[in-house]
Formats: sequence, C-alpha cells, structure tokens
Amino acid sequence: MAAYSSYEFMRVTFPSAYVAHLEMNRPSKLNAFSRPVWLEFGRVFRQLSEDADVRVVVLSGAGDRAFTAGLDVSAASSEGPLSGEGGDLDPARKAKALRGHIGEFQGCISEMERCEKPVICALHGVSLGLAIDISCCADVRLAASNTRFAVKEVDIGLAADIGTLARLPRIVGSTSWVKDVCLSARDFSAQEALQVGFVSQVHEDKARTVQAALDMASRLAEKSPVAVQGTKELLNYGRDNGTAAALRYTTIWNSVALQAGDVPSALMSVFSKKTPTFEKL
Amino acid sequence: MAAYSSYEFMRVTFPSAYVAHLEMNRPSKLNAFSRPVWLEFGRVFRQLSEDADVRVVVLSGAGDRAFTAGLDVSAASSEGPLSGEGGDLDPARKAKALRGHIGEFQGCISEMERCEKPVICALHGVSLGLAIDISCCADVRLAASNTRFAVKEVDIGLAADIGTLARLPRIVGSTSWVKDVCLSARDFSAQEALQVGFVSQVHEDKARTVQAALDMASRLAEKSPVAVQGTKELLNYGRDNGTAAALRYTTIWNSVALQAGDVPSALMSVFSKKTPTFEKL
Amino acid sequence: MAAYSSYEFMRVTFPSAYVAHLEMNRPSKLNAFSRPVWLEFGRVFRQLSEDADVRVVVLSGAGDRAFTAGLDVSAASSEGPLSGEGGDLDPARKAKALRGHIGEFQGCISEMERCEKPVICALHGVSLGLAIDISCCADVRLAASNTRFAVKEVDIGLAADIGTLARLPRIVGSTSWVKDVCLSARDFSAQEALQVGFVSQVHEDKARTVQAALDMASRLAEKSPVAVQGTKELLNYGRDNGTAAALRYTTIWNSVALQAGDVPSALMSVFSKKTPTFEKL
Amino acid sequence: MAAYSSYEFMRVTFPSAYVAHLEMNRPSKLNAFSRPVWLEFGRVFRQLSEDADVRVVVLSGAGDRAFTAGLDVSAASSEGPLSGEGGDLDPARKAKALRGHIGEFQGCISEMERCEKPVICALHGVSLGLAIDISCCADVRLAASNTRFAVKEVDIGLAADIGTLARLPRIVGSTSWVKDVCLSARDFSAQEALQVGFVSQVHEDKARTVQAALDMASRLAEKSPVAVQGTKELLNYGRDNGTAAALRYTTIWNSVALQAGDVPSALMSVFSKKTPTFEKL
Amino acid sequence: MAAYSSYEFMRVTFPSAYVAHLEMNRPSKLNAFSRPVWLEFGRVFRQLSEDADVRVVVLSGAGDRAFTAGLDVSAASSEGPLSGEGGDLDPARKAKALRGHIGEFQGCISEMERCEKPVICALHGVSLGLAIDISCCADVRLAASNTRFAVKEVDIGLAADIGTLARLPRIVGSTSWVKDVCLSARDFSAQEALQVGFVSQVHEDKARTVQAALDMASRLAEKSPVAVQGTKELLNYGRDNGTAAALRYTTIWNSVALQAGDVPSALMSVFSKKTPTFEKL
Amino acid sequence: MAAYSSYEFMRVTFPSAYVAHLEMNRPSKLNAFSRPVWLEFGRVFRQLSEDADVRVVVLSGAGDRAFTAGLDVSAASSEGPLSGEGGDLDPARKAKALRGHIGEFQGCISEMERCEKPVICALHGVSLGLAIDISCCADVRLAASNTRFAVKEVDIGLAADIGTLARLPRIVGSTSWVKDVCLSARDFSAQEALQVGFVSQVHEDKARTVQAALDMASRLAEKSPVAVQGTKELLNYGRDNGTAAALRYTTIWNSVALQAGDVPSALMSVFSKKTPTFEKL
Repeated sequence: MAAYSSYEFMRVTFPSAYVAHLEMNRPSKLNAFSRPVWLEFGRVFRQLSEDADVRVVVLSGAGDRAFTAGLDVSAASSEGPLSGEGGDLDPARKAKALRGHIGEFQGCISEMERCEKPVICALHGVSLGLAIDISCCADVRLAASNTRFAVKEVDIGLAADIGTLARLPRIVGSTSWVKDVCLSARDFSAQEALQVGFVSQVHEDKARTVQAALDMASRLAEKSPVAVQGTKELLNYGRDNGTAAALRYTTIWNSVALQAGDVPSALMSVFSKKTPTFEKL
Repeated sequence: MAAYSSYEFMRVTFPSAYVAHLEMNRPSKLNAFSRPVWLEFGRVFRQLSEDADVRVVVLSGAGDRAFTAGLDVSAASSEGPLSGEGGDLDPARKAKALRGHIGEFQGCISEMERCEKPVICALHGVSLGLAIDISCCADVRLAASNTRFAVKEVDIGLAADIGTLARLPRIVGSTSWVKDVCLSARDFSAQEALQVGFVSQVHEDKARTVQAALDMASRLAEKSPVAVQGTKELLNYGRDNGTAAALRYTTIWNSVALQAGDVPSALMSVFSKKTPTFEKL
Repeated sequence: MAAYSSYEFMRVTFPSAYVAHLEMNRPSKLNAFSRPVWLEFGRVFRQLSEDADVRVVVLSGAGDRAFTAGLDVSAASSEGPLSGEGGDLDPARKAKALRGHIGEFQGCISEMERCEKPVICALHGVSLGLAIDISCCADVRLAASNTRFAVKEVDIGLAADIGTLARLPRIVGSTSWVKDVCLSARDFSAQEALQVGFVSQVHEDKARTVQAALDMASRLAEKSPVAVQGTKELLNYGRDNGTAAALRYTTIWNSVALQAGDVPSALMSVFSKKTPTFEKL
Repeated sequence: MAAYSSYEFMRVTFPSAYVAHLEMNRPSKLNAFSRPVWLEFGRVFRQLSEDADVRVVVLSGAGDRAFTAGLDVSAASSEGPLSGEGGDLDPARKAKALRGHIGEFQGCISEMERCEKPVICALHGVSLGLAIDISCCADVRLAASNTRFAVKEVDIGLAADIGTLARLPRIVGSTSWVKDVCLSARDFSAQEALQVGFVSQVHEDKARTVQAALDMASRLAEKSPVAVQGTKELLNYGRDNGTAAALRYTTIWNSVALQAGDVPSALMSVFSKKTPTFEKL
Repeated sequence: MAAYSSYEFMRVTFPSAYVAHLEMNRPSKLNAFSRPVWLEFGRVFRQLSEDADVRVVVLSGAGDRAFTAGLDVSAASSEGPLSGEGGDLDPARKAKALRGHIGEFQGCISEMERCEKPVICALHGVSLGLAIDISCCADVRLAASNTRFAVKEVDIGLAADIGTLARLPRIVGSTSWVKDVCLSARDFSAQEALQVGFVSQVHEDKARTVQAALDMASRLAEKSPVAVQGTKELLNYGRDNGTAAALRYTTIWNSVALQAGDVPSALMSVFSKKTPTFEKL
Repeated sequence: MAAYSSYEFMRVTFPSAYVAHLEMNRPSKLNAFSRPVWLEFGRVFRQLSEDADVRVVVLSGAGDRAFTAGLDVSAASSEGPLSGEGGDLDPARKAKALRGHIGEFQGCISEMERCEKPVICALHGVSLGLAIDISCCADVRLAASNTRFAVKEVDIGLAADIGTLARLPRIVGSTSWVKDVCLSARDFSAQEALQVGFVSQVHEDKARTVQAALDMASRLAEKSPVAVQGTKELLNYGRDNGTAAALRYTTIWNSVALQAGDVPSALMSVFSKKTPTFEKL
C-alpha cells in the first residue's frame, strides 16, 4: 500500500478488507481543485482500478467543512486558459488551447467512472460545482444532512463542462428539476437530493455518512468480484447503448464470466450458509 | 381458448372481455424457471400477441407464496451450461455454448416486451432475480405489500443477464438506487419500489393486487386497440432511439393508424356519451 | 416590441428585464389549437429565440379555465386530414397527406424546444392532450393546484403524435407511471405530477403559479446569457447522444463560450458582491 | 406552373411529364451563391417536394461555364458574418451569429436532400466548393467530361461546412480518396469522379449530360411514385440508422404503401405489357 | 446429415470437410419464393448456424436458369396480404396484417446474416428482386458472367422491403450507383456488379462460379473456426455500431476467444509448416 | 526537435517545413511490434499531435523490407497474456488480463487516429496483420508496388483485434472484398488495394512512395492549419455520428474556426497570388 503514499492531494486508507477509502485532501482550500489536484485524481483512480486488493472505493473530502468547493478559482485565474495567457492569439487558436484544457480535465474526472470497482461517494458540507461533476461519476451517492449542493457554474459565467450536464440527467428522473438546478445555480439540500433520487441515503453528519458508505462498501467487498464488477460494467454500458445492444453485450460478457469459480463458490455458500471466499480480480 | 390448454407451466384465463390473465404456474417450486418453463413463457407471449381476442394481459404467479423465485437453481445445476457439462471444452468453446444458452433465455423473456398488447404485472410474495428481469418487460407494475424484491444474481456469483441490467435503469429514475440494489443484491420492499417509481401502486395483498391489475386491464380493453397498441409501440420505440427519430417514426405510424375507424367511433362516443365499440385488432 | 403585435392567438408581454411572457390567447375556446394557432405558436418561438432582448420565456394560457384544452376537435373535424377530405384517395396517398399534416404540427410545437432561451411553463386548469406535448418542450414546469392533466389522445382513438410519447419518458423517471397515464388517458393531478417529477413546484392557483414562473425567470435573466443558453443547449444535446459524444460536444461548445466577457464579469461580481451586467446575446 | 415564376435565381421548366428541370440561374456570376440565392434554393426545393405534378427533378447550372463556382466570395466579404461586421463583439457572441448563419445556409441546401422526389444532378464546368455540398444532396450524379471538381474550402482557410464533410464519406467508398481531396483542395476530373463512384456516368459535354439526366428522369417518372419515393425515403433513413431500425422502419412504411393502387396497376401492366398509369402523389 | 433431408425447397450437400452447399431448390419456378420457401430458408440457416460440422456455407440456386427469380408473384397474388384478402378491414387493420407478413419474411431472410458461419453466395442467371435481398445477407458474393441482376421491386409498384434498401448501401461504396439501380429497377450485369464492388469475382458460367465458391469455402474451412466466426461476428457488429463501441466489443469478444486452443495450434502449424487441426465449434 | 530523440523504436525527422516523417525503426525485426514498441508508438503520436511545429505526419517503416511484419510473435509468446502466464487463473480472471492487454494495445494504436494533424501512410514491402490495423488509422494511404498486404490474424487463430475489423469496412466501399480478405487472410497486392480504394496511389518502389507522401505532406503543410485540422476532425466525427449530428457539430466547430486570421489571409493570397502564411496551431 506504500504505492499510494506518493500523492500530495489524495489520501488512501484501507479500513476493511478490500475496501479503499479515498479522501480528497486539501482541506485548507476546502479541497478545491487546481490542475495538480485533478491530475492526481485521475491517476489514483487508474491505480485503484487495477489494484486487485481493492474491490470497492469510498470517496469523501478531508476535513469538516467541504467535500469540495469545486474549481480553485484563484489558481485558474493565474495560470491556464482562463488566466488570460495567450491573449494575443486569435479566437480559433485560443479555442484549441481551451479544448485541450477542458479535455484533459474531463479525462481525469472520468477516470472515476472508468474505475472497474464500484465507487460510493459520501458527500458532506460544501459540495459545489465540480463536486457535482465528480459525484455524477460515482455509482452510489450518500449525503450528510449538512451538505450544501449547487451546480454553481452558471454563477461564474459558464456552462458546467466537466460532466454534470452530460451525466446528471441520466442519474435523476426529473428533467424539470435537473434544468431548474442547472440553469439557476441555486443551492439544494441533502433532503431535496434524496427526494429526487440524486442520493440514496441521508445521514446526520459527515462521520455517520462516511461510516454508512464504508459499511456498504464492506458488504459489497464480500461478494464475488466477478459478479460485482460485471454488474457495474453492464449497467454503464447499457446507459449509452440501446436495449438490444446491451443484451447482446451482456451475453458476450457473461459467456466468460460464468466460467469463473465464483458461481460454484457462491452457490455452495448459499447451501452451506458459510461466507464464500473469492479469488482476487 | 382451447389453444391455451397445451401449456404445462402457463395458465391463461379470460376474466373479462379482451383481458387475458396469465399465471406462471409451478407453485410447488415457487414458480421457478427451468428451461421448459422459459420456452413456454416465450411461446405463450407470442400467442397472446397475435390473438385478436386479447387486448391486455395481466401477469401474476400461481399460489400464495411467490410471483417467482427466479431461476430454478437445482435444475440449472443438473443440466445446461452451468451444470459443468462440456467440462473438457476450452473456454472459447464453452463460451459459445453459454452465448447460445443466454441468448435463448433472453429471447424467451423478451417476447413479453415484444407482445403488442399492454402487459400489467401484478407482483407478490417472493420476487427474486428473474422476477425482476421479467417485470422489467411489463408496461405497468403493481405490487402487493408483502412482495419481497431483490436483484439477487450477485449473490450467486454472477451479473444479472436476462435483462434487468439493460432495462431497469430506463424504468426507474434514480441511478444511485438502481446501482445500490443491483450491486448489493439486498432485498427491497413494495413500499420502496413505489417510492422510486419501479411500481405504480401497492395493494394490501396478492388478491387485491391482482384485482387492481384486472380492473386496470378492463379499462384499457375498452379503449381503441389501435390507439392503445400504437401508444405502447411508440413508447417502446422512443426508448431506444433519439427524439428526432422517434418523432419521425410516430409520423409514419400514425399516417396509417389515423385511417382506422377508431377515431370517428371514439369521437362519436365522446359526443354521445356512449361506450364505443372497436373492431378487433 | 411592436414586432409581437401581429399575432392573433399569441400575446407577448415583458413584465421584467429580458423576460417575455407568452400567453396562448384563445380563451373562448379554452386555448384550443387549430392550424392557425399552431402556425403562430411556431412562429412566435422562432422570434423569441432570435430576440436579443429576451433571455427567458414564461408560457401560460390566457383566461382562468385552461392552459389549453388541446386540439380544437371541431376545427379538426371540418378541415384537414381528419375531416374526411380526400376520401377518394387510396390509403397510401392519404398517408402522405397525413404525414405532411403531422410533420408540420410537430415542427411548430418543436420550435418551443429549439428556442435557445429557457422556457418555463406555468400549467393551470384544463391541460389535456396537446397541453402535455407542449409542456414536454419546456425546460421547467410549474403547476397550479387545480391543474387537470391527461394524456388524452387514446380516448379519441389515437396515439399521441405531437411529441408526448417521444419526450415524456425522458422527462419523468418512472416508466411504469408514464405508461399508465399514456395508455389509460386518465386524469392526474398537480400533486401527482409533482410526486413523479413531471413538474417542479405546485402553487395554490394560477396567479401564484404564473408569478412564481416570472420570478424564476427574472432570476435566470440576471445571469450570464452565455452560461444559461449554453447550459440549455448542452442538456438538450446530451439527451439524444451518448456520454462520450456529449462530453466532446461540451468541449467544443465551451472552447468559444469561455472567450466571452461573461466569465470575468461574473467572477468580478462574485468578489465585489455587485450584480454583474452582461452583453446581449 | 406560374408558381415557379417568382424566383430570381432559380429557373424551373417541365421538359416532359412529371419531370422538373431546375437551373441555378445566375450565369454572369458563374451561378455563385449569395444569401438571396440560397434562400431561393431552399424555397424552390420545398415547393418541388410538395408539387404533385413533379415526380423527378434534374438540377443543373445555367450557362456554359459552370454548374456553380460556389460561394459568392465578394458578397460574403461585404455582408454577413464573414464581412467583419460585429467586430466589437466578443468571440462567443460572434460565434452565435456564425452559428445562425451557417445553420440557415445548411438548412437551405439540405432542403434538396429532404425533397421527397428523386433529384438527379447534372454537373458540368466549374463545380467548386459549394457545388460539392449541393451535389452530395442529390440522389444520382452525372457529369460532363469537362467538369472541374474541387472541395475548395481549405484554400480559403476553412473546413467545408455546408454538408460535404458530413455526406461525402457516405457517398464514396474510398475514405483515403475522400480525405485526399478534402484536405488538399485539389482539382479532380469527371473521370476520377466516375472511378471512385462519386458520379455514375460521364458524358461528352454539358448538353449531352443534361439530356442523359432528363432521359433518366423520364424513365423514373413513368414508375409508380409510391414505389420511387418510398425507395428514396428508405435509402435515406437507412443511411443514418442501424440495420435493425431500418428494417423495422421499412416494415411500417410499406404496411401502408402496399395499400396503394400502384401494386395492382404495376402487376397488371407486367402481364399486359402496357404502360401503367399511376395516381398523383 | 439426414437432418437436412426434411426440406422440400432446400437441398444441402457436403462437398468437402466442414463445407455445406445449400441450393434453393425449386427450379421449375426459377427458385421463386412463396411463403413455404422462405420459412424453410430461415429454418435451414438456423440449423446450419448451430451445426458444429459446418464451418462455411455456399449458397446457389438449383438448375441452370436462375439463382432466384425472387418473389413468387402468382402465389403472392392468391394468398397473403397482397392477395386482397381482408378487403373489408380498415387501412390500419390491414396495415397490422402487412406488418406481420413483412416482419416474418424479413426475419426468415435475416437468418442467413445471423448464421454464425461465413456464407459465400454464388449468383448466376436470373437474380432479380429478392435475389438481391438474399445476397446482401451473404459475406462474400461471386457471380457467373451470365447473371442478370435487378432490384426489381419498383417495377411492381413497391419499395424493396426484405432488406436490400437497408443493406445494399453498406455493401457497395457508390451511393450514386445504389440509388440509380434501386430507383430505376434497371438490369445490371455481373461485370458492372464487379466494378462497383457488389461481387468480388466473376466467372465464366454457373459451374465455374459454384466451384470457385466451394474452393474458397474449403480454404476457409481449414482455418480456425474460432478465428473465422469471430471475424464475421466482429465485422457485422461494427457495421451497426460506432468505432469506439466496436473496439470495446472486440476486446470483450477476444478476451475469451484467445483462450481457445486455436492460437497455439495455429502458431505451431506456422512453425512446423503442417496443416493445423481445430476442435469443432 | 531534441524532444524526439528519446525514442528507441520511433525515428522522427523534419524533411520540410511543418512536415514530420515518422519511421517505425526496428528493421532487424521487420519493424515488428512488441509491447515497448506500441507504447512508444502511442507516445510519439501524442507528442506530434500537440507539437505546433508539426502540421502533417508521414509514416513509413525503416529499412527496405517491411512497413511492419505486425505483431512480434516471439515476444508475445514469451511474455504477456498470450505467453501462457497466469495459467492457474480461471477463464474469467484470465479474460480480465486479456481485456487490459488488448485495451492498452488498441489505445496506443488509436493515438494515430486521434492525432489532430493529417497522417499520410506510405506502405511498402511486408505489411501484414498489425500493418493493416495501423494503416486504417491514417488519413491517406499510398503504397509501393511491392507491398505485400494481408489481414493475417486468422492464420494465427484469432480475429484481428487492434482495429482492422472496426475500421476497414468504413474505409473501403466493397464489403464483399473486406470480408474476403479478413476471413481468408490471403495476400493482396498494392494494385488490388488501389482498385478497391484502400490506397489512393501506387508508386514504383519504397523510395518513390515515401517521396510522394512527403510531397503531398508539403502541400498540405502550406495550407491553413485551422482549415486542414478542422477538416480532419469533422470527417472523423462524421464517421461515427448521423448526418444531422455531424451538421450540427460542424456548425459549432466553425463558429469559432471562422474567427481565425486564416480566412482573411487565405482570401488575400487568392487575390494577390502570393503564398499565405498562417500562425502556428
């Protein structure tokens, strides 16, 4: 696990078997994201995805005040394409720089979605702007009752471009609500997030929320990793493909997954009432 | 209706005009599905779809204890690709047998979705695993308060492959909830199913649930079958195609549907306050 | 604003800066739609979309009784393809006329969705049939508590063809509910619409609902129009394209949008706590 | 046919039964397109599409020298978004004007593709830039041996944006060739166009090419318009949808088209060896 | 092989190891298709697809005169929806019968495409209408020099609906040519078919063409069936899905296919210069 | 340019302004690919894509004998998932390793397609297996007359999985030919490749082919990079999206590209007959 010690802004701990707890760790800045932060964020999820000792990831923010306050606006103002550098370029050449910048940023955050292990997001405190982009990449979202949510980007003059607008409408059933919060940039509470289905559970405070996420993670970590990771992959594939294509892909996927040792182990444990053990994956 | 007497595991009755009540009928096994059962299931839906005397189908399980307990695990263990037969084949050749097996199984269950008549599903009691795959193919879902739901497949070491993972996220608005129940295989209640929109109504017990489904079916059966079956087709087409394609398809579909006698009959009945009658379809 | 005085059935007023209030204005017929009405409806939305003095649109019905009663059935019975004209044509030639008719009708209503400015729909009173097709083209929906909703088309013998069946399932999370109301043509209340997420707010009566819509509109009108209109465009694009395509489109879109003066204006206002002003768009 | 006399830049004649010959008619400018020209181009195709006396359209350029030289660069330099007007706007606001401009231009040219009647394009002489965008909207392309083709846009500093890049790769089999001519803006001859399949026939000069197009048009005009127009629609639908969707759409389309009187008329003529006549469409 | 003796219109022989030669066998009617013929056609391809003793299929027509003359028009005139039966139904109800009829017909022909083994089509003599629909489902097409091709449907008053319009544009590079032959119903020769890439080889007469097909089949039958059938599947999947989806599907497919014994067998044979043998599939 | 000196298997030279010549440089192994080679291949294309001093790339193989002989089979046999390592894993766990392996390999080769600059591929000598996957990622393909092509994978027991099966059918018009060469693994010549449109030009030998590619590159490098790179992007986007989506994307793309200084520079050069110069991109 020393492998996870090289990160400056990401802290990884292992509170129970096969469960990794990832904290965005820049509490003095409310865990705001500058470019070094998002590059690490992408890198740590690539590592977690490949680590056979990890079966479930829980994501939260370090410190009491924030999951993340979103983009580090002061850093963005002093370097990178929003800082006014390249001011002598024509708009098409500036656009190329911006495309590169946005694409890299999106790519790092999307690594969380591409992580083959389920990711449970424990939201709490300040959860603005990028916090929504990030949590849309989670599989399951829990929130503390004090969470302050907002799709804040409109208030700084831009349309959210790191994933919220692409993913949120596929996560929450009511488009009327999605457009309301995205167009108005207004705050919404954990309770409202629960009601519309953005989060699955609300807990009293950050500590209880993180604990609930870790407990859920422990339960998932006891299951067959072939079954759990396959379920995640098939749900994600289905989101972007038609029903017939999803059914066909499922067939191909399971034609090898069913050859794992996990089915007989699981079946035997059902009959024997003993906890099964599964090989690493 | 003698035509429906040849089934061993499917019982079809006709409680009111144009309404067929289909019961999965293997109560001694909690209506569990072995291969002969799913072959019959596909066959009976093809027949119902083509039967001009049927305008709406209600589906429930025979007996008090279960809608269906899902896959008949003991049958699956003794024959077919999960039984270990073909143990000397290499993984690619085993995969071909598995593809054939899963594809056939999916195909039989999907006949329920392809049935041109609306299908109302009355869920009750044990409703595990395949019960979810099946009910995802219904148009409307009602549940008895004692229903015990679970996307159970992960607990036997596999990702659900008969349709749940492809269809459930398009049926229920909250992806956070969908991933929770699919990854954890945990039970959920009728009340929870109602809250997230998986079912539309919850009734006190099985009898009342089936009755509510039959009443809804009777009301639909009085409507123009051209209008009702067209509505089902257009909603299903829209699910897997973009808005522009769905609008165009709707145009072509209605360019002939509007030439039916049903529009003038329906309009006349609106003015005359009499119940219209419609030709068979 | 004289430009909006030429409409017979559409009334446009400007209750606050950059906010247009559009009323369907045929109260003697419960704002029912004949062909001249829908042609004007399409035209006024094209004009509002291009009008740089408009940043948000609120849509309601004139009069106390109805948002709209839907299709003007008596007009439809006396002219156009439902009137029986062209009775000597063969079914394929009649179908061509019907395709032209439905396509034009769909096209006019879809102008509301294509309008580049957010549209907030204030529903009230009778809101049947076409009322649902229309409100599905809005971005945010509010309703008065007395609203009487129904996807009424099945009751006049046809499948809804002006957009409800293509759009409603992407707006509301529970497909079971969508199919129930579309197949049965039953009434549903504002409260039920709120519960399933079809509308975002319910207010006591029409006046309060319209006021709430206008207030929301005023708040949106104060924001950067580059940010607001971009957010609408990106949410709509995402609906009909996969996640990867939506992310790429977002990148291209923002590569020029971020070159607007709106980001620095908005950022400065955040720091200075003053209301920013934005150039017209 | 007086209806076609109102155009300034489009000349429509009727050389044989049900055949319309449309000429882009601005020979003094090599039939170059300014905004008034493309607005008329869109309008005349909408009219031809709806005109039941037209079954096939032939498109050529007036005068001996050019099909069309493409965009009228001097007009574009003095008005519209390329003229430098709006120079004080920020790049995002200029982009909005450009989107509107390009979208309108694309929309007018695309009317040719949307025309429900087959369009045969007779290319000759100077056929640069927009000439390719236009001819990509035709169903069949013929060329005179003196045709000088080029996807010229790169040479004036832009990527072709009126349709060539979207449509040409679906028209011609060799992507290596498509990229060569689009990236290099080099000229290619009628013979080369024939070899790669961009055109179907090459004739000695303009007169013979137009005559060949008119002869082909006459032959198509004798066929069942239900069959011919349906064939065009189904081929175009198939281009942008998967095989399964195309087969299903075909089924729906023909379920009414086969009810036309055209099948019995055509069959009878096969047996009787007499030319059938078909009702207008 | 007795299993193939039950067909009336399909003759199956086994000229070399793992090669099945299927002949449409109704020479007295130029191998024209009535409903019993297409039902058998679908059935025999399902059987061939599952038969582990078959690795490649060659399809030709029995007799000297025709591959197939297409639809059996006289049978179609005396029964089924084109016969005028059901003349008292309204157009929407007739349309339902037609949808069922076309769908069944398409489904039977599409079994040829779904056959997991490569199908080589040897065209010869009369090859009209349905002959094109059928040959579009083949993987490779060869033709005798005397083949008379035509997409004949327009001449009997209808748009081709059994697959030609959906598949031909994806098979042949020049859309200008595809539209020409589909709209005009004109004959085209084997030489023209070769030039546009519809067929890959032209041979002097039927005998030599069938022999060339059988030789090609023998060569394919010697290869690894895992490799050959996977190649077919992946090419077909790619046709209807985007590049990224096709690459991902390829990854999943090969993640099990590479576990076959075929790779080591094939590699060893490369080094040893001996013909490898592969297990049945 | 020192930046390109760190590669072991990739040699980059700059024969003319803005033109990079990339050679796969492992001639002693016929430029065969082991894992270190493909990792470098992906890396060098990422670098070329971002290098503002590069506007066009030419790709060829070092040495006289081969473009590339494809996969380095002996390296693949001794390490990685084809080597038999992990032999004690169950098939599902082996499949995971294989997915990771294939996905990484695909990803490196796809960097060539993602390179924003046009890539011209000069094929020569041995060009087997992976040579086809690679050249399918080029924009334009030229070949020496001695090129020996084959989609060789079937002969080593597997379906090609690094891109050929996903891309080749979109590059070459004749599917009959594509399936022939992919299923049979047979050799084909430069002349045959020219005839079917896989390559655009054939030259006498390697030297002349590379020179022709460099000359074409020089011509492209003189054009506006905004126009050239936009053309590549729009053609690639169009390949995987429908016509309407491609037109819309084109509109957004050009709404900023047209704000470059390149259009006025190019126009002025047309009038002045002088070679324009364009800013770096």
